[in-house]
Amino acid sequence: MTTAPRFQIVAHSGDARRGLLRTPHGLVETPAFMPVATYGALRGVGFSELSALGAQIALANAFHLHERPGASVIEAAGGLHGFTGWRGPWLTDSGGFQIASLAKRATVREQGVNFRSPLDGAKRELTPERAIAIQEALGADIAMVLDQVAPVEPGDQLRAQAVMERSLRWAERCKRAWRGLPGRALFGIVQGGAHSGLRRQSARATVALGFDGYAHGGLGLGETRAERSALVAETHAQLPVETPRYLMGLGRPEDLLAAIATGVDLFDCVVPTRHARHGLLFSDDGPLNIKNARYREDSTRPPDRDCDCSVCARHSRAFLRHLFLIGEPLGPSLASLHNLRYTLRLMQRARAAISAGRFETLHAELAARNA
Amino acid sequence: MTTAPRFQIVAHSGDARRGLLRTPHGLVETPAFMPVATYGALRGVGFSELSALGAQIALANAFHLHERPGASVIEAAGGLHGFTGWRGPWLTDSGGFQIASLAKRATVREQGVNFRSPLDGAKRELTPERAIAIQEALGADIAMVLDQVAPVEPGDQLRAQAVMERSLRWAERCKRAWRGLPGRALFGIVQGGAHSGLRRQSARATVALGFDGYAHGGLGLGETRAERSALVAETHAQLPVETPRYLMGLGRPEDLLAAIATGVDLFDCVVPTRHARHGLLFSDDGPLNIKNARYREDSTRPPDRDCDCSVCARHSRAFLRHLFLIGEPLGPSLASLHNLRYTLRLMQRARAAISAGRFETLHAELAARNA
Repeated sequence: MTTAPRFQIVAHSGDARRGLLRTPHGLVETPAFMPVATYGALRGVGFSELSALGAQIALANAFHLHERPGASVIEAAGGLHGFTGWRGPWLTDSGGFQIASLAKRATVREQGVNFRSPLDGAKRELTPERAIAIQEALGADIAMVLDQVAPVEPGDQLRAQAVMERSLRWAERCKRAWRGLPGRALFGIVQGGAHSGLRRQSARATVALGFDGYAHGGLGLGETRAERSALVAETHAQLPVETPRYLMGLGRPEDLLAAIATGVDLFDCVVPTRHARHGLLFSDDGPLNIKNARYREDSTRPPDRDCDCSVCARHSRAFLRHLFLIGEPLGPSLASLHNLRYTLRLMQRARAAISAGRFETLHAELAARNA
Repeated sequence: MTTAPRFQIVAHSGDARRGLLRTPHGLVETPAFMPVATYGALRGVGFSELSALGAQIALANAFHLHERPGASVIEAAGGLHGFTGWRGPWLTDSGGFQIASLAKRATVREQGVNFRSPLDGAKRELTPERAIAIQEALGADIAMVLDQVAPVEPGDQLRAQAVMERSLRWAERCKRAWRGLPGRALFGIVQGGAHSGLRRQSARATVALGFDGYAHGGLGLGETRAERSALVAETHAQLPVETPRYLMGLGRPEDLLAAIATGVDLFDCVVPTRHARHGLLFSDDGPLNIKNARYREDSTRPPDRDCDCSVCARHSRAFLRHLFLIGEPLGPSLASLHNLRYTLRLMQRARAAISAGRFETLHAELAARNA
């Protein structure tokens, strides 16, 4: 009996790979994009629409959900699957990143993070053991270790090393605390900032601990896309081939394609819905700023003529622009639907291209159109 | 050849009646509720969901749409049907009510209304002729005459009479300006405040002008439900039987049922979506305040166990409460979906009860549960 989800690679195209990830709540075809439902809900998009958009797994944030409504409320409702109405697989992030960026006066000690709740100002402590207990209460199909996320000045390699090493010790405690119910997975996180040597070291030590999957943490914070691809590829060389690889927090179409080219399997990002709220609609030719005056009378063309989403099937650029201009919340909602569908369809196209052995062609074509 | 939509009564139950209204964009079964899309969009609900909710006709506001994006933009896009993506029937309100309540320094003269645009402060004039031209440009299946909506002190019958008589002269000008494309309908509006004699007089004169349907205007402004029912019934005695009757701006479930009992066929109201935004969810037992602390762990029951909407099928009270507490716009969206479905299903239930000759039983049952 194994507690690991079965992950199987079914096709390659260069370093890009297509796989199947088995979870207790269904199969996930990879490369996969996980829409972000921080508090258990997507911004402006209902779960009844998510399957139709092509999503097979969603992401929630354990830290935020434990603040509201509380892990015990969700556990009593049958976990995230029962509480939210999304009965497909859930990956939960542990919340280290959110604590560092949101909470007031967070103090990181070896034991864990002490902070003031952004909600009510009360004192809270999050330890690796607690992060695991919360995620198990939430019923996560895939849980993440608690890592230390700390600002490190560029060039301060000693500090970067200290942060990376503490994350490793926390990862070990997370693994020890993990009960590992059947089929549930715990992923480790590779740290080390933009330091290639540190990331290699982190990857080797994380693999030595042994996890069901491995994430790239702390990227997308200033490095160029080429630098990131190099760091990701070097890490991949340290990872067991037949385990899922997850690049945390990146979601622009061009970032997704570049990462898939290096062999990443899983993604999550708020960019599709955040850009949507600002009126930026994804297309193969780059984002369309729907609020632009040039779309005022553009009433025959959909936002993206290549898109098969319900918004592009029904609405024109002029109508969507009108919704944004009058401040109607339906505007961001419809734009989010489109951007999520664009992103999830991009994954479908990537998977098909990998199966056909022509991922690099797709990547190059889209990069040229979007240049 | 007739320009009037065919309206046919297919069943009676007491004074309640079931009918079929034929429009150039489809049939409408009455009694019917028209969801309000003031600016051509429902608040937080997409048109792709509206048919599934059971809506057969939507309402937009000519005044607001002419401010943004402008009637010419919509006309160039093929009218509201082409511009908004809702290809079913549209009724447009002329906007007299909105000008009186929204615009700064509106001055009503015999010629029309002069006001400052609430959008840019520019001087505008709306005349009966202009109100018709705008609605024709919007491609309305059913247009409304421009009426004078003015605050009248209770007891000031002279002023009420003057306002009513001016509305009649405007109605006549509207009728003259109306081109009456095939199948399009123009409805008159009965005024007279809470004065039964004035309303009767207004009804007779409006019928003498001859319209394709008749609306009750200026109600829901303080009179009791019993007073309103009496005023509505007296007006009905003046109207031709085989024309649609429309009660403007009322939409609480108990108001809808009381009006159907007197023979009203059409309704519109922002109440279902406005209450939804405040977390009030309709049910046969009265509205549920979903933000109430008692629902914190109510994770097994849907908002309304009798409802067949996608929200009640998927989500618990605890989850909806959570969405409202975190301020996620999806909360009001889902609540709006539910309230619209509740209202539209109430119309379906009313129609079925009328066909079965038992509308009064349904009315009494629901009044007792909701007491």
